[in-house]
Amino acid sequence: MLAAQSDVQQDTPEVRVTEWRLAPGAATGHHTHGMDYVIVPITTSVMTIVAPDGTRSQAPITTGKSYFRKAGVEHDVLNETDKEIVFLEVEVKKA
Amino acid sequence: MLAAQSDVQQDTPEVRVTEWRLAPGAATGHHTHGMDYVIVPITTSVMTIVAPDGTRSQAPITTGKSYFRKAGVEHDVLNETDKEIVFLEVEVKKA
Repeated sequence: MLAAQSDVQQDTPEVRVTEWRLAPGAATGHHTHGMDYVIVPITTSVMTIVAPDGTRSQAPITTGKSYFRKAGVEHDVLNETDKEIVFLEVEVKKA
Repeated sequence: MLAAQSDVQQDTPEVRVTEWRLAPGAATGHHTHGMDYVIVPITTSVMTIVAPDGTRSQAPITTGKSYFRKAGVEHDVLNETDKEIVFLEVEVKKA
């Protein structure tokens, strides 16, 4: 499986901002979110989400339409489309 | 002066995420940031920043290239280009 590319844009005492780029066929790898986070999609696309039990679901994303999740989310994120998927992850560090 | 359009996408105990749209000629109006914040530009453009003393500066922004600022920043933000400017503001609430 092709690895997603990540670039940490900001890492301050308050937040960490990471740009994620998933080429067609790429995956983040299975991971657990350690912090609350906001996702800001840069591309409009569909992500494939694989839950810890292997269940797959399709998650549409739209450029500039954010969503928020609490820490503890556990999944793999795949790009099964034929175009690059780009989004920013803003993780919130506890004060 | 035309007013910027804002849409609060998320408002949780942890963060507030606001989408800002500035049509050509629009301005946010003079404001002081009460929280630390991350800006995620959706469009690539140039913002005109007006400081409290009236000093004007040009701030280029690039799609998907974030920046972070501490609370206390005070300014007006204008769109003096001929295309819409869109960005998301992620404000971090103190725990």
